[in-house]
Parts: sequence; C-alpha cells; structure tokens
Amino acid sequence: MIQVNENYLKIQASYLFTEIAHRVKAFQESNPGAKIIRLGIGDVTEPLAPAVIKAMSAAVREQSKSATFRGYGPEQGYAFLREKISECDFAARGVKVSPAEIFVSDGAKCDTGNFQELFGPRVRIAVPDPVYPVYVDTNVMAGRTGVQKNGRYGGLVYLDSTAENGFVPDPPSKPVDLAYLCFPNNPTGAVATKKQLEKWVDWARREKALILFDAAYEAFIRTPGIPHSIYEIPGARSCAVEFRSFSKTAGFTGTRCGYTVVPEGLKAWTSKGEPVELRQLWMRRQTTKFNGCSYVTQRGAEAVYSKEGAAQTKKTIDFYLENARLVREALSSMGYTVTGGTDSPYLWVDVKGDSWKFFDLLLREAQVVTTPGAGFGRAGEGYIRISAFNSRANVKEAIARLSKVLAR
Amino acid sequence: MIQVNENYLKIQASYLFTEIAHRVKAFQESNPGAKIIRLGIGDVTEPLAPAVIKAMSAAVREQSKSATFRGYGPEQGYAFLREKISECDFAARGVKVSPAEIFVSDGAKCDTGNFQELFGPRVRIAVPDPVYPVYVDTNVMAGRTGVQKNGRYGGLVYLDSTAENGFVPDPPSKPVDLAYLCFPNNPTGAVATKKQLEKWVDWARREKALILFDAAYEAFIRTPGIPHSIYEIPGARSCAVEFRSFSKTAGFTGTRCGYTVVPEGLKAWTSKGEPVELRQLWMRRQTTKFNGCSYVTQRGAEAVYSKEGAAQTKKTIDFYLENARLVREALSSMGYTVTGGTDSPYLWVDVKGDSWKFFDLLLREAQVVTTPGAGFGRAGEGYIRISAFNSRANVKEAIARLSKVLAR
Repeated sequence: MIQVNENYLKIQASYLFTEIAHRVKAFQESNPGAKIIRLGIGDVTEPLAPAVIKAMSAAVREQSKSATFRGYGPEQGYAFLREKISECDFAARGVKVSPAEIFVSDGAKCDTGNFQELFGPRVRIAVPDPVYPVYVDTNVMAGRTGVQKNGRYGGLVYLDSTAENGFVPDPPSKPVDLAYLCFPNNPTGAVATKKQLEKWVDWARREKALILFDAAYEAFIRTPGIPHSIYEIPGARSCAVEFRSFSKTAGFTGTRCGYTVVPEGLKAWTSKGEPVELRQLWMRRQTTKFNGCSYVTQRGAEAVYSKEGAAQTKKTIDFYLENARLVREALSSMGYTVTGGTDSPYLWVDVKGDSWKFFDLLLREAQVVTTPGAGFGRAGEGYIRISAFNSRANVKEAIARLSKVLAR
Repeated sequence: MIQVNENYLKIQASYLFTEIAHRVKAFQESNPGAKIIRLGIGDVTEPLAPAVIKAMSAAVREQSKSATFRGYGPEQGYAFLREKISECDFAARGVKVSPAEIFVSDGAKCDTGNFQELFGPRVRIAVPDPVYPVYVDTNVMAGRTGVQKNGRYGGLVYLDSTAENGFVPDPPSKPVDLAYLCFPNNPTGAVATKKQLEKWVDWARREKALILFDAAYEAFIRTPGIPHSIYEIPGARSCAVEFRSFSKTAGFTGTRCGYTVVPEGLKAWTSKGEPVELRQLWMRRQTTKFNGCSYVTQRGAEAVYSKEGAAQTKKTIDFYLENARLVREALSSMGYTVTGGTDSPYLWVDVKGDSWKFFDLLLREAQVVTTPGAGFGRAGEGYIRISAFNSRANVKEAIARLSKVLAR
C-alpha cells in the first residue's frame, strides 16, 4: 500500500496566497461589479523592459533556425548570464563571486524551497517570524518539525521580528544549525545594516551554522551603506548561501529566472565531522532534479545587465518605490505606523487588531487586497503587508478608498 | 554544526550525462580538430516549429505592454494550455483527463524527480533496469535506499528489462508500493502493449500500489494499438500518475515545459489507513516549491496543439524517426541486434561487451558520442543507447564512421 509523506498533513491550512486568492475570488463572484485593486501578493504589474523584450524576441528567433537553435543548456545556466551576474551584481559592489559559484534557476522560490534538501533530517532551524512561508513549509514537508500548535511548528526556533528590534532579530541564543534571513525583508520591508549582518556572520562562523540569505528584493535598496549582498560582510563566504531573483528586480514573475550563489569552500559536515563542499551537493541536486531555465528567459535576464536594460529596470523600481512612498505617507498621515516602503516594495502596517479581519474589511469595504500579517507567522498578527506593485492610478485610487474606510 | 543529507553521499559517481559530458570535453580538448557527432544525450537538434515561434514571439510582445503583461500565472498552468492538453492529448484518444487534473511544469525531469516527495520514507520502490537515472537517484537522495553495491542500491526492487522479456518487465512478485514505468522506454526504446500495461494496472490496484508512468516519448509512437497513455487502460485512474513533456514532442529541451496528470480520486494512505487525495498533495507541493512555467513558454506549448503546430511537430518527429530507421538498418546490417528506433527516438544496441569501453571506442575511433548502457543500470551493461536526435547529414556521417570502425 502506497503511503503518503505524513509531514505534508501537518500543514493544515492552504498556502497563504492560495487562501487569499480563494477569498478574493469568492468576493468577486458575489460582487461581480467590484473593481478590486490588488496590493496583496507581491506580483509586478509593469511590463518587461524594452531591452529585455528585444533580447527575448531575438532569442525566440534563434530558436527558429537549426544553426542557432539551443537545446539543453549548461547545467548551471549559460556562461553569458553567469558572467554578467558575477560582474554587475557582485564585482561592481566590490564582492567576489565567480560565475562557477552561480546557479541559474527558474526562480528564488524554488531555490529557497529546495536548498534544505541538502541537509540532514535533524538540523536545527531558525526562521524569522513573520516569515515568507516557503522557508517553513518546505522544512515541515521534509519532516524537520513537529506539529503546528498556536501557529508555530514544534522544533523550529522562531526569531520574532518586532517593532522593538526594528524587525531585525539577533542571532538565536538557542543552538541552531541553519538560519533563514531575508533582507530587504518579506514581509516587513525592513533592511539590515552592515553591523547587524556582521553579528549574524560572526554567529554562524562560531556555531558552524549556515545562513540562507534571501536577497530577492535587493534592487529596491536605495539607502547608501545598506548591504545588497551577504557577501559584503567579511567571512560570509564560509557560512552563507545567497538567493537572488529577477522577479522583482526586472518584472520576471511570469518569466521565471533567479539564481543561487554557493561559494567555493563553503562546507557542511557529515555526522562524523567530515567536511562536504555544499557547491558540489547543490550541483548534484540541480543536475538530478532540474533541467535548466529557458534559453529565451536567460537571454532576457542577460539584457537586464545591459546599459539600457539596467537603466530601464531601475526606472521601473523607482516607479514602484514612489508608489510605496505615496502609500506610506497616506497611511502615516492617517495615524498608522508603517515599516518598509523605502528600500523595499513592501509596507508593513501596524493595524492594532486582527489581521485577517482587517484584510476582510479592506477587501469588503475598499475592494483593496492586502496580505494579513498573521499569514506570515504569529509575530505578524496585528499587521498587514501592502505591496507597492501596481499602476500609479490604482495606487492613488487605493489610497483614496483606504482613506475613506479607515477614516470612519 | 550544519549537517549534510548523507544520502547524497551514497551517490558516488556523477550524474550519467555529466560524466559523458566530461569525457567528451576531455576528448575534444586533446583532439581540437575532431568533429564530434552527438548521439548520446537525448537532446533535440531541429528548431522549434514555426507555429510555436509565432506564438512565443507574440507572447514576448504581450509582455512589453502594461495592458497585456502577465505576472505570476495560475498555479497549475494557464487554462488555455491545460484545456488544449485535455482535449488533444487525451479526449482525442478517448481518454478523459480534465484540465483540473493537469499540472503544467518546467519539465518532466523535475516532475518525475519531485513526485516521490509525496510519499513516506519507507515505501517500497521498484524501478526497471536499465532505468532513467532520475527515478533512482531522487529516491536515494530521499533516503529510501541503502548504499550502492555492484551498481545496485539496497532496498530497491530492480525489474530487469532484458532481451528475454522484450524489455518490458512483469510487475514485481516482491511487495512494492511504488513502481516507475517509462514507455516508450528510455533507454531501450521498447514500447508496452495494452495487454502488458493491463497486467501492471491490475497489479497496482490489487496491491494498492502506485504507478508513476513516464510518457515523455509518447509522440514517437506510430504502431497502431500501442497505448499512448496509461489512462487508455481501464482502472489506471485509480493507480497511476502520468508525466508528459514537450521536450521531445516539440523540441522544448531548452524551452522547458512538461506536465503531470494526477487524476481526481487517486489516493495514497496514511499509516493508519486513511485515504489522502494525491492531487491535493501535489498541488500543495507545487504551490509551495514551484512558481509556474514561463508564460511565453506556455504560449509556445499551446501552439503545439494548433493545426499548423501539430502538423509541423509531427513532421519533425517523423524526421527523427527516419534517422532512427537509418541507424537501425545500418547497425542491423552490421550484425547488431537493435531494439527501439521504431516507436521511439532511442536505439538500444547489443554490443556484446563492456558498454563504457564501447562508448570510449566509438568516441575515440568514430568521434560519435553514444550513451553506455551500464550508466542506466546493471542490466544495461552490454548495450549502448543511440539517440536519433541529429541532422540527417550528421546521422549519415555517423553511420559511415560507425561502419568503418565496427567493420574492422
């Protein structure tokens, strides 16, 4: 008799964004005339940059001729893309990450979800709370937790990100082997300073722990001095893996491209204490279970680093950041305390009450979709996340509606 | 201290095709003038069909404008594609598979590799031998096997596919919960008759076992009466998952699209014997660890089902099948016994000796890359796999070179 992985059954509720989609769909069906504005799921709305479109169009044409047709690509991604990443995302900021350390994929969600496969069943894991659900759920599925109780899984170490610590938790005091960090943070929009990340790197090196650093929102950082990469911190190469994405950087949510950096020399250990190169293990995982990112997409990603592409994508991010500023100012003027929205597309709004109720209220009364903070963890209760990804017109309309509803 | 998943260390050698790539690269570097012909890895060489190119180009243009831009797509894939699949791949053959049962992905390698995650750590697994390495390696990584000894992992049930059983093994006599099948087979090129598959479905239903049916090469079937889908067998909906791919069907190896069918009502069980819908579990897995296949790619896949697209892709497959026929006839006339190559792009050649040695001989003397049968399992020793994916000129040149070397 075929038995299920019972760890899957520990996850009672559906995936957060699936639940939101269901509620929105139900509302839309009962209110067919309602013009819903979506500031919930962090999905981009602006078109791909002209340079990216040009590159993808050319790549499609290449696929139409035998002489230029490309089948399976190199396992880690095409060199043309990995070299640009190495040069523009790292060398340009004084960080050494070689193309051989870069693994191109179809997105950071997959990579952050899959990376835990490389580790033993009993590694002790710390996650921030609130947290991007993928870090938690993938470890639940892998059997590294107990059951859920009061919104928390047994066996996980939760690091509360609160107003008190500026939404940047300190390294754990309990023993932990693997810690997930995300800055600029999803969902809080908080960024970590160099000093704060240094604490984390020191901790990881001391404990022989590993940091999985999700930098998917790096392109939104505008404040000088805020690290864009964990590798800006000395010593991070020996204790951290970094995930990046083109989804928010260049509007690739429907185009699918991201990458993971696994530095050479970065190690984990066997139960007997023998060191194992993580880069080799990830290579093995990817060559066995993944077959590369679309060639057309990789050409599009390459174009993000061209002079035109870089200017065009920066302009789009500036546009979203201006959306964020407008929402931030409006909510602040209504008396709400707002985190994020300056170096991040996300605003984390203290709603001083039940977050799903507030979500339902905004959906019902303002037809604005947000994300309830409780969906990101217990410490997210009392907050909602608002995403700045939308047209200016929709953002202004949403602000007008929110003003009406929240001023009541 | 962060500990590795030690199951990964059970896999000593590198992934088969990585090893081949290394040997070919080494040969090319010592023989820079050699014109190598690749009949090894099953990578397509013909360009995408004009209808596919047209659809992908149009989709790229849609991504350039706000009004038509698409971000995250529906979790299971776009309805426009799933409806076409349901209609053309199934209803047209008298098989009922609804769009809700179809999960579009970035390829069958990922899906066949990931599906085992849904099952418990102690499910008993049967794999054919020779076998597509992904089925085995992903279960090794998941800890469902012992260590490797004489090319076989402890705990797995190997089903020898031999000349004696026409390379279609019978269901296992030992207790097994999960069986991988692949027809048309990779690597042997063998196909299974309706009667043979009926035996398997009967077995699975009797044992409450699950069949993971890999039909990636379905489009190469030309012999009337050979099932294209496991669901052509009555009862299969309650015991089988099917994987399909556009890689070989439509030349998508570098474009990345496939899909998995998980019928409604298909169940696995908890340790207490409670039934669990597999479709729900796979949905949960995919929504948590995957973020959809590129929109541009899905539009390309949709075009495979248009009148023009279907005719064009069929023509390309006919072209590869003619390649296969030429190689098959040439090798047969040299006295080799060849399986496959009629309803499959693969030929399975009995070389009556060590397969890696034969691989090296053909690489060195004929500069033709094949795949050594031993790389697919112990029962593959004594065979090589030849792929028909290449230009007609290269195939003819390869035949000429093989004739010289093998006639010596």
